[in-house]
Amino acid sequence: MSQLLRINMSGSNGPEVKEEPVGDYAGLGGRAMTSTIVAKEVPPLCHPLGAENKVVFASGLLTGTPANMTGRISVGFKSPLTGGIKEANAGGPAGQVLARLGYAALILEGQPQDDTIYKIVIKKDGVQILADNSLKGLGNYDLIDKALGEYGEEASFISIGQAGEMKMAAASIACTDEEKRPTRHAGRGGGGAVMGSKGVKLIVLDRAGTSSVVAKDMSAFGDANKAFSEGLKAHAVTGQALPAYGSSVLTNIINEAGAYPTHNFRFGQFEGAEKISGETIAELEEKRGGESEHGCHRDCIIRCSGIYHDKNNQYLTKQPEYETVWAHGGNCGIDDIDAIALMDRMEDDFGVDTIEIGCAIAVAMEAGVAKFGDAEAAIKMVKEIGAGTPLGRILGAGTAAVGKAFGIERVPVVKGQSMPAYDPRAAQGIGVTYATSTMGADHTAGYSITANVLDVGGKVDPLGAAGQVELSRNLQITTAGAIDSTGLCLFVAFAALDMPEVYQAAIDMVNTCHGLSLTADDVAALGKSVLKTEREFNIAAGFTAKHDRLPEYFKNEALPPHDVTFKVTDADLDSFYNW
Amino acid sequence: MSQLLRINMSGSNGPEVKEEPVGDYAGLGGRAMTSTIVAKEVPPLCHPLGAENKVVFASGLLTGTPANMTGRISVGFKSPLTGGIKEANAGGPAGQVLARLGYAALILEGQPQDDTIYKIVIKKDGVQILADNSLKGLGNYDLIDKALGEYGEEASFISIGQAGEMKMAAASIACTDEEKRPTRHAGRGGGGAVMGSKGVKLIVLDRAGTSSVVAKDMSAFGDANKAFSEGLKAHAVTGQALPAYGSSVLTNIINEAGAYPTHNFRFGQFEGAEKISGETIAELEEKRGGESEHGCHRDCIIRCSGIYHDKNNQYLTKQPEYETVWAHGGNCGIDDIDAIALMDRMEDDFGVDTIEIGCAIAVAMEAGVAKFGDAEAAIKMVKEIGAGTPLGRILGAGTAAVGKAFGIERVPVVKGQSMPAYDPRAAQGIGVTYATSTMGADHTAGYSITANVLDVGGKVDPLGAAGQVELSRNLQITTAGAIDSTGLCLFVAFAALDMPEVYQAAIDMVNTCHGLSLTADDVAALGKSVLKTEREFNIAAGFTAKHDRLPEYFKNEALPPHDVTFKVTDADLDSFYNW
Repeated sequence: MSQLLRINMSGSNGPEVKEEPVGDYAGLGGRAMTSTIVAKEVPPLCHPLGAENKVVFASGLLTGTPANMTGRISVGFKSPLTGGIKEANAGGPAGQVLARLGYAALILEGQPQDDTIYKIVIKKDGVQILADNSLKGLGNYDLIDKALGEYGEEASFISIGQAGEMKMAAASIACTDEEKRPTRHAGRGGGGAVMGSKGVKLIVLDRAGTSSVVAKDMSAFGDANKAFSEGLKAHAVTGQALPAYGSSVLTNIINEAGAYPTHNFRFGQFEGAEKISGETIAELEEKRGGESEHGCHRDCIIRCSGIYHDKNNQYLTKQPEYETVWAHGGNCGIDDIDAIALMDRMEDDFGVDTIEIGCAIAVAMEAGVAKFGDAEAAIKMVKEIGAGTPLGRILGAGTAAVGKAFGIERVPVVKGQSMPAYDPRAAQGIGVTYATSTMGADHTAGYSITANVLDVGGKVDPLGAAGQVELSRNLQITTAGAIDSTGLCLFVAFAALDMPEVYQAAIDMVNTCHGLSLTADDVAALGKSVLKTEREFNIAAGFTAKHDRLPEYFKNEALPPHDVTFKVTDADLDSFYNW
Repeated sequence: MSQLLRINMSGSNGPEVKEEPVGDYAGLGGRAMTSTIVAKEVPPLCHPLGAENKVVFASGLLTGTPANMTGRISVGFKSPLTGGIKEANAGGPAGQVLARLGYAALILEGQPQDDTIYKIVIKKDGVQILADNSLKGLGNYDLIDKALGEYGEEASFISIGQAGEMKMAAASIACTDEEKRPTRHAGRGGGGAVMGSKGVKLIVLDRAGTSSVVAKDMSAFGDANKAFSEGLKAHAVTGQALPAYGSSVLTNIINEAGAYPTHNFRFGQFEGAEKISGETIAELEEKRGGESEHGCHRDCIIRCSGIYHDKNNQYLTKQPEYETVWAHGGNCGIDDIDAIALMDRMEDDFGVDTIEIGCAIAVAMEAGVAKFGDAEAAIKMVKEIGAGTPLGRILGAGTAAVGKAFGIERVPVVKGQSMPAYDPRAAQGIGVTYATSTMGADHTAGYSITANVLDVGGKVDPLGAAGQVELSRNLQITTAGAIDSTGLCLFVAFAALDMPEVYQAAIDMVNTCHGLSLTADDVAALGKSVLKTEREFNIAAGFTAKHDRLPEYFKNEALPPHDVTFKVTDADLDSFYNW
């Protein structure tokens, strides 16, 4: 039976560990688990970096089973970036190991009395919390190297870099991949800062002696997994495009659609797109001895990741994701993929959200700190983040903070979080997601690009207002219920939206695993319930419908090449939560 | 008949000037005028630095008449610091001249197409708007020196320094005093940044050929003014304490009461208080050939200001105000009054709010940027603001921005604006004002220190919750109606609260000036209406009751020496607007 592992960092004799029954939280996984715990246990008006905030780690309902594509781990907290509730999830094996260790959730709470740095070691036979100031100031790469020497290949690691220690609002939480590199990040919303505020630098999850989570009906579970996997293989996006080119397969597609935010959301197309496209990256990876196809954990069959080598054919970073490439690429006017990959590496090392930082750099460029296209200046800015210089502090505090510091109006954020790689004027469905999501601007919360651009799961004209709220609402509900709470990778959605049998197979996996008989309606009800819980937290934290808005300039400034403004009305946005 | 002067900086052929009847805004003055115009004309969700925001200047209902103590000018805008509506007011003769020129309000709107710097010259016979890039980058002192050469002694000036040009959220709007020094600032909320975003560096108000505003019944008006003035002379605070020691007469009093925020609101008493007290300042001023008693405009009879000379007996700055001395003094642990006066001078020159910046420095000290008490480091930080370095940008963006950049929990702000010089735990009535004011943390909105500490206008135990909401509510209503909208200096309140005949005389002045027959109830109704208008704007901008709160740590962290936490409940705070 799964337990909650609760670690209170406030104890007067040092941190205290408690195992307790799952209780009221039984049956929840991933985001449903983290958001429910945060909503119930964290005072909405507390300071995100104070003792009352918590960091909750939870594997999905399917994570830890042998099922494919179920490796995600959710991290929940009150966000220092948005001031609202936050769930960010990451790949890599950490989620699987947490589940194999028998924990439905790990809750970090309280705050140490001084600035001692701690590591938490979780093994099958017990939990240790160790003060270890030798870890202070280490980047994620050095930290994991050091930890590997101590804890070996059976361990997975969750950690923060310098940014988390410095409590930067854009600090991420890193999870190691199968090669024990800190490349899979719960990036958005500043979880790294909250973890840093608890004095926790490293969590070691040792899989030694553990075994897979066993489904209630293993045979039926196996059948469902098989049907699910076959569907993914059969779909053009999950079976071909993503394995071949990774998420950056989107670069040319989104650029072609005129929805590729360029020069801080000034234009919808980037002339350097080809040079930083998935096709170019895959070619380079092959040429330099990296890998153009790679899974972030063992049971991945989409294998959208890769291994990126530098000009000297040495490992530099994992294959940079589409969003990362865009944030530092078109959005900053940079078409040098090696420079972008270097920034990806540095940001993984310092532990910051690549989307937030790319957008922050672009706003700094808008402010005249550097010229658009100046890769060297951008790299220097990233270095300043790691060094914690004043400019690094501004950037590390996120895009909105850069706008505030430099007095800039054109700051593409919602609820304080920067927009990702789709201009909401040229893909208005994603604009609805940015505006209404409890998370702040976030593409993963309801990826309307499917029907707006990719012709997946139907077709909704991207340039008009019609149908966008319904599109985003359905996707947000399904994502919260079926994806983020089960531990499934979001990328399965391409197949699940187009192929009813794939979606059914996912539900069948949950049912046969847990002995349930959920219908699609039940899953939707769970998704609605998660969104409602999160929204109520945000309302109690001071958010209103007025925060469900894009910045005004998206309504006034037409985006080339379609010369289109954001047309979804405020009233339409306000209808989002009428269900 | 008074007119509105509307200047649109957006015109495609340059700025456009329009005079128009007061219309719907007739009968309003000061804050009632600015808040009504902002609420009616500025979209609540617009970006504070965008073309849709406006800066509204309005003299009070009595400003420009020969009546004493009526020199205030109100400045209204949507605040880049708080995101809400803002009124900040300043002394000096500018308000009087604007009224003498026949303008009930000056409205700056729109935004120039490029970064040209403009000056606006308003004379009896017309308005000129002149591009003048030679003003770019000048501090207020150099700017006014230059302008004086051009426009002479009959002119008063309203201007911004480098901070406003850089659109810093703590940038102030400077008004010259009688000696043509830019020492009287509409400090709070970032009006300087909004003015800067409109490309306006300097407003010249030429009194040549103008005359006093004439009361409808000059004889009765004169009688009321006489009664009013005699009352002020007779009261111990307005007749003796303020003239002798300026507002810093409060230093020893508030310190004695244990309500003097020290080391970023960590303690309630500062051991160096005596060294920076009003008594010490007055002594130094006399010794060095400055002035310990001085009025910021001709018709002031309280004369709380002074002239502060440096160690070489040269003019350094006007007598630093209590709030300024505290912000850089006890709050930063600095007891060197010359260092504080130098920072006051620099901040007037750069054009930033001294309260916001002192608090910002203290939070930076909490973050370890410098040690508490290190005056040299504090001076260096202020210099960085003027230079616009990254650290200067962080500080210039205000206290909350410093907290965000450095990941600090103990950040004493409400609605993004820093608290002034009274700890809300040791003077809980001012805590209610901080929490509930539409302005963010602001002592002038409802100066509960009167009954909490000074035994003026009654007595309410400062350490308990009882009676604080009622105290603050009454003061906030009266301040909005009778003080901020008439152009009266807030300091008349000491006498008006204790002596009914003084309050009646103030109402009589308004009535005899404008041919009205307002009662005290009518004035209260005006005050309520102003607060309601402002609150509705804020609600439309996304504020809720959740923003009417002090930071959580004021409820948990006991303040020495009284070891008291903030005790007014959320429910009590929420009852504030029930009237």
